Amino acid sequence: MEWCRVPRGAVIMNDAGPERILDAQGILAEFLRTRNLTTELCAPLHRDDYMVQATRDTSPPKWHLGHTTWFFEKFILRQFSRNYRPFDEKFDYIFNSYYETVGEFVPKPSRSTISRPSLESVLDYRKQVEESMAELLNEQGDNLEALKRAELGINHEQQHQELLLMDIKRNFYQSPYRPAYAKGRKPVSAGRGEDFISFNEQTAQIGFQGKGFAFDNEMPAHRELVPPFSISSRPVTNGDFVAFIEDGGYRKPQFWLSSGWEWRLENQAAMPLYWEMENGNYGHFTFYGMQDLDLNEPAMHISYYEADAYARWAGARLPTEPQWEVSVGSQGWDEKNWLETGYFAPFSGKETSGITGIGNAWEWTLSAYLPYPGFRPIEGSLGEYNGKFMSGQMVLKGASFCTPKGHSRVSYRNFYAPGSRWQFSGMRLSRDGPDGQ
Amino acid sequence: MEWCRVPRGAVIMNDAGPERILDAQGILAEFLRTRNLTTELCAPLHRDDYMVQATRDTSPPKWHLGHTTWFFEKFILRQFSRNYRPFDEKFDYIFNSYYETVGEFVPKPSRSTISRPSLESVLDYRKQVEESMAELLNEQGDNLEALKRAELGINHEQQHQELLLMDIKRNFYQSPYRPAYAKGRKPVSAGRGEDFISFNEQTAQIGFQGKGFAFDNEMPAHRELVPPFSISSRPVTNGDFVAFIEDGGYRKPQFWLSSGWEWRLENQAAMPLYWEMENGNYGHFTFYGMQDLDLNEPAMHISYYEADAYARWAGARLPTEPQWEVSVGSQGWDEKNWLETGYFAPFSGKETSGITGIGNAWEWTLSAYLPYPGFRPIEGSLGEYNGKFMSGQMVLKGASFCTPKGHSRVSYRNFYAPGSRWQFSGMRLSRDGPDGQ
Amino acid sequence: MEWCRVPRGAVIMNDAGPERILDAQGILAEFLRTRNLTTELCAPLHRDDYMVQATRDTSPPKWHLGHTTWFFEKFILRQFSRNYRPFDEKFDYIFNSYYETVGEFVPKPSRSTISRPSLESVLDYRKQVEESMAELLNEQGDNLEALKRAELGINHEQQHQELLLMDIKRNFYQSPYRPAYAKGRKPVSAGRGEDFISFNEQTAQIGFQGKGFAFDNEMPAHRELVPPFSISSRPVTNGDFVAFIEDGGYRKPQFWLSSGWEWRLENQAAMPLYWEMENGNYGHFTFYGMQDLDLNEPAMHISYYEADAYARWAGARLPTEPQWEVSVGSQGWDEKNWLETGYFAPFSGKETSGITGIGNAWEWTLSAYLPYPGFRPIEGSLGEYNGKFMSGQMVLKGASFCTPKGHSRVSYRNFYAPGSRWQFSGMRLSRDGPDGQ
Amino acid sequence: MEWCRVPRGAVIMNDAGPERILDAQGILAEFLRTRNLTTELCAPLHRDDYMVQATRDTSPPKWHLGHTTWFFEKFILRQFSRNYRPFDEKFDYIFNSYYETVGEFVPKPSRSTISRPSLESVLDYRKQVEESMAELLNEQGDNLEALKRAELGINHEQQHQELLLMDIKRNFYQSPYRPAYAKGRKPVSAGRGEDFISFNEQTAQIGFQGKGFAFDNEMPAHRELVPPFSISSRPVTNGDFVAFIEDGGYRKPQFWLSSGWEWRLENQAAMPLYWEMENGNYGHFTFYGMQDLDLNEPAMHISYYEADAYARWAGARLPTEPQWEVSVGSQGWDEKNWLETGYFAPFSGKETSGITGIGNAWEWTLSAYLPYPGFRPIEGSLGEYNGKFMSGQMVLKGASFCTPKGHSRVSYRNFYAPGSRWQFSGMRLSRDGPDGQ
Repeated sequence: MEWCRVPRGAVIMNDAGPERILDAQGILAEFLRTRNLTTELCAPLHRDDYMVQATRDTSPPKWHLGHTTWFFEKFILRQFSRNYRPFDEKFDYIFNSYYETVGEFVPKPSRSTISRPSLESVLDYRKQVEESMAELLNEQGDNLEALKRAELGINHEQQHQELLLMDIKRNFYQSPYRPAYAKGRKPVSAGRGEDFISFNEQTAQIGFQGKGFAFDNEMPAHRELVPPFSISSRPVTNGDFVAFIEDGGYRKPQFWLSSGWEWRLENQAAMPLYWEMENGNYGHFTFYGMQDLDLNEPAMHISYYEADAYARWAGARLPTEPQWEVSVGSQGWDEKNWLETGYFAPFSGKETSGITGIGNAWEWTLSAYLPYPGFRPIEGSLGEYNGKFMSGQMVLKGASFCTPKGHSRVSYRNFYAPGSRWQFSGMRLSRDGPDGQ
Repeated sequence: MEWCRVPRGAVIMNDAGPERILDAQGILAEFLRTRNLTTELCAPLHRDDYMVQATRDTSPPKWHLGHTTWFFEKFILRQFSRNYRPFDEKFDYIFNSYYETVGEFVPKPSRSTISRPSLESVLDYRKQVEESMAELLNEQGDNLEALKRAELGINHEQQHQELLLMDIKRNFYQSPYRPAYAKGRKPVSAGRGEDFISFNEQTAQIGFQGKGFAFDNEMPAHRELVPPFSISSRPVTNGDFVAFIEDGGYRKPQFWLSSGWEWRLENQAAMPLYWEMENGNYGHFTFYGMQDLDLNEPAMHISYYEADAYARWAGARLPTEPQWEVSVGSQGWDEKNWLETGYFAPFSGKETSGITGIGNAWEWTLSAYLPYPGFRPIEGSLGEYNGKFMSGQMVLKGASFCTPKGHSRVSYRNFYAPGSRWQFSGMRLSRDGPDGQ
Repeated sequence: MEWCRVPRGAVIMNDAGPERILDAQGILAEFLRTRNLTTELCAPLHRDDYMVQATRDTSPPKWHLGHTTWFFEKFILRQFSRNYRPFDEKFDYIFNSYYETVGEFVPKPSRSTISRPSLESVLDYRKQVEESMAELLNEQGDNLEALKRAELGINHEQQHQELLLMDIKRNFYQSPYRPAYAKGRKPVSAGRGEDFISFNEQTAQIGFQGKGFAFDNEMPAHRELVPPFSISSRPVTNGDFVAFIEDGGYRKPQFWLSSGWEWRLENQAAMPLYWEMENGNYGHFTFYGMQDLDLNEPAMHISYYEADAYARWAGARLPTEPQWEVSVGSQGWDEKNWLETGYFAPFSGKETSGITGIGNAWEWTLSAYLPYPGFRPIEGSLGEYNGKFMSGQMVLKGASFCTPKGHSRVSYRNFYAPGSRWQFSGMRLSRDGPDGQ
Repeated sequence: MEWCRVPRGAVIMNDAGPERILDAQGILAEFLRTRNLTTELCAPLHRDDYMVQATRDTSPPKWHLGHTTWFFEKFILRQFSRNYRPFDEKFDYIFNSYYETVGEFVPKPSRSTISRPSLESVLDYRKQVEESMAELLNEQGDNLEALKRAELGINHEQQHQELLLMDIKRNFYQSPYRPAYAKGRKPVSAGRGEDFISFNEQTAQIGFQGKGFAFDNEMPAHRELVPPFSISSRPVTNGDFVAFIEDGGYRKPQFWLSSGWEWRLENQAAMPLYWEMENGNYGHFTFYGMQDLDLNEPAMHISYYEADAYARWAGARLPTEPQWEVSVGSQGWDEKNWLETGYFAPFSGKETSGITGIGNAWEWTLSAYLPYPGFRPIEGSLGEYNGKFMSGQMVLKGASFCTPKGHSRVSYRNFYAPGSRWQFSGMRLSRDGPDGQ
């Protein structure tokens, strides 16, 4: 990579000239904004809520607070900050998530056994690392590698903001109190008609091609041939899903993948996660507590298996990742879904024409999470960030109402195992061929 | 049962006259002393330590605080206290341990997911229940059933005091910090010679025959024929166990029960729990932190399988429960081992003759935990207290340095599954026949 | 042990003179009779039935044929027979059941993967070992150790005859054809009234005290104090058990041990093994195929957990091992239940007074399988025969209709884990105290 | 589909005229050839070998014989043959593999418990079905649906021929005798140099486009853009893999996918399946028994995880399915690898230039097994044949030396879970970009 130092920043160059400027002060501002948002998101928690890990998938909020901090310490401060003294040597064991090349770490299901450091110590840790990062960015504002890693660390913490909300929701659901995370009333969704919009065969540029930040797994940009298809103007709604349930969709093997059917039996799945049937009515656990099911809201907390079965039942299929990119992804995104709005539900404006629901919920695709041609992970231990998970997972596109701004990129590749559904995962129907039948 | 009310108490009668007096004021005093001790035992905990459950066997300290309180609320206040208003209806679900006839309860491995009620709420709960109990005992001091259940509730909480220490030790061991629970230095044990003391065949009165409190499983008193045997004057020590280890005892199947050998392989057991080998030296995790292994201290945190294998290796066997009662149990017990002393290690005085080490550590016996002839569980849901566990467990006799006073009864029957070893379990050798060979 | 050689035999002496004679020709005759019976029991099998292992508990019939043979080869021929050449060196791995001190062996659940040796080879193996044993007994008829081991090997094979039938029944139950093992019609049981017979406290001689063969676990004979009790004149019948089922016994936790309740949930147990409900009628898989449930037949194929729950429901308990010995065990046994009769159902004669049903089915006791005072396992690897299983199992007394003659000893100790029920296990009610209430 | 009946056959038409003729006599001949080959492949088995299921992945050979027969009975004879009387109604339960819409079936791990029908009955079953199929094809030679299903049934049975060999090899490996399946000596492979051959970006026609038989998952043919890449002229060899092992490849997490690393730990994988280290030499279990490792032979019995790790270690990657098709797949295939040759090892001729090793072993690709755009499963229950497995599996291309002729199609899509390695799976290196670095 060619680049040059400039006062308080670095310029990455490409053949055509400067590609983008990493500006230390901008990064510092974003760093501080992000760090504050993380702790703000914890404000509704009671003290002991920080320790809970309701399932093997989730992590205690305290651990998220520590781990996101450790990321800056381990990969930036320890590398670049002269005289930096680690807060606690044991944190390499406690707050490492999965970096095998860095050393041993607490097994994931045991994260809830970490009572020390205390929450207070973790907050002190956050403060120390924030001060040191500020110092580093001020003093070494032209250190390209430090700037790049700081940017990565910020994006990493933003990903954990959504994870934090996923885990809090799952933890709260486990509680016999079913507490509400957000104050006020959950907004009610507007209904929308459904069209199928057709796309002809095209050769598309896929992957990240902008000038800002992107994860390694979004690159390199490359061409793909996208076969003709049509796609729904809106996500599948709760109301749609009720029809599937009531037609016996969960009991008919012909709609299910083989491993999906096993998953269904093992999990005794009969409706999406967080749904409950009481006295013949569907209820729905949301950030605003238990609510009547909002039939117009995009269906969420469905596994890939459920999404796939629903699509077969509906005589359709999921879109592939490139199909999604050239159709839904090419629309303008709605800022009203950003996490930063302070609303904890999908935003649903008035009926409009065209593709809607973008950013309400992640949308499962028919594409496995695999490397793009020419993919190269980041060098060194950070190469474990994304690449090693490219097996056994499916890609989700878009964003959810819990995704922070700056993550709403058409090239963004979210990924989960096909049986996972504690993430904010929904779906949109697609059909092969140009005519949408 | 015949009995009569007396002012501020009740007298239980038997054929020979008054058997014992349940004195409401005495019970109240013991109740308050016990309640205070429980919270005092938590003093060394940091805030988040209250939430930890390091293994499926252990419970979070906060849960212990709540459960012992619920026991009084559920089985006494709700039954006898006019106008008592439960603190929180959900506590029947949250703090019920295993009373199936009372209703559903949190699965044991999920106790660490209980973030609400908070620790503060649990402490408030404790206060409300303590005040209500005081009121009840003052107002209904002649209510025999209430008095009997209060006494049971006190003994129940005392049992949980030892459980609490067992669980804290296990939790602290899990922590990468290996924190010390107690301040100061662990006392060093004195060495003792070993004799085998012989007992002829005898018919003994077994089970509880005193006038105070005892659990239902200690009754009824009955006669048993005890065959001739000899028994060691002292428990097996850490030094003894080192010899077993170094002779390859853990690797020789001929010394092991079949299920013990499976246990050993599955747990990769090569020494007692809390022992560690570092640079050729044995270390030992204690309430005072990691220490060099104290060779004179009774071996502890061994499973029944390890105890049995050690005994076979030593050409001996474990004593049966009646053998233990007529030999070790008939000695005076040493108050210096009581939990109330504030020391968290077995007390070892100077070399004395006769049987020693009583109350240092629970001693495994060769007796399965089964009902005595004529055993009748308490009526109603409290009948689940002891009787339903009479399967798959072995009896331990004596007491440990973490057992509260008042639990040092010869008839006391502690019990654990043969693979458990997070309790303070040790052993003493015995031999068949009168001559101790 | 003192003993002397005599022509074609050996005499074991005790203080009072000759204890018993081990007569080589008599042993040889019994050996050949036993060997023939084993293969006769396989006569109803189709060729592929020899390979089946329906559950982790069972073994393929072919394996039983090989293992019982290996026992003679390994522990007798290889030790005592000059010039004996093992049939196949790999059989030490293939046909060793669980003798850890002898070497590695096929994991039990993999016994069905043994296709080689073929059935024909195993039958050849049987023949070679039989000829060599005959030769050995003819030539070394005064070799005490060989005679003793031959006697043990015969008893071992007889135990496997019952195991073979247990396993065949379980395997046939697994088959969609539910084939009948025996020809003809299953005999129908006669009804019997039920009395409780009382026994006063007594000191009894327990354990084997005869002059013939007994297993090490039946010894030494010793005295036990048997508390007063009463016991039912007959086993619990299928009809009795139906009443328990129809009273909701399987759904009421108050009747169940804690681990029994877990067992019940895990196994979704709602009736004894081999029972089935079809159109409101109870059916019953027997050696004669599926049959209507015979209400007068002793209830069988119940686990200890079910037996214990039934007893609690009935306001009674199981007898202890000594109680059973001094009551049921002291009755004359009925030869009509012996395996050798060729009937494969419990024999039930006409209504008689006194204790009945002896030898119909094994009877669960309230006693854990633990060593008698003074117990010493056989020296060497054969010490693994019984002693190492003395953990986690309960004693069953008596015999079943599948038990070979010569195993009907009052001191005989059968044992199974409390959740096992593919053995022919039934129960008889007992009550504490002399008056049978 | 447009088609017309012709005497003894049916002609499938497309816009351009007749597409292909399904000739009843030709199908019958292929049917009989295939059926005979299946039973011939079993010739080396001993009688009890037919019953073995060494792992949960494998099926007993007897089951393969029955299942392939049932396929014809269930989907053809029962549909089209007037007066056909099923051999045994229970076979729908016993020999159904996984067709949920057809009814219940024996759980896969229990297939080894099927002792009845006997092997003889299964062979009779085969005969009945063969005769009835011959009759049907003779009488209804113009029944298009019957002809199509017969063709599918033949291809199905051919797939099971390879499965049968996979399972026999796995079963024989389990046996302590490690028997050889094939007589004679395993041929030794010739060494080959390695080149990387470059391919420019191209738009390729992917999927089946011929006129003969293909599975539904190979269709429809469609265009894909294949990015530039280079690919090795030969598969990775055993010798190559030894270098990876000896460089510590199995112990370095940086080369492994996250789930691959878990797989490695769980399976304690340290070399490919069937390899063994003895006295410092690599041995190799083959159809000719244990052999010294043939360093020039293509590495086989590796999981996707191992293939991926090897590729990363080698600074390369696996080819995608389209990349493989346009490079390796476009070469002429070597008939000498066909199963029908009677050799049970990969064929390796003399050193030649160009791409070699085609059809030696299946080659893992970087492509997940997912539907092609426009994929439609067969209507009805046969739609479960392929489509429902399109989750959690990776595509393998090519063929192995155990693949029957007629399955060597460039469009053929084999698929296995990434942790499977009892199939004949190897790999070939690829690199991104046109220049093969």
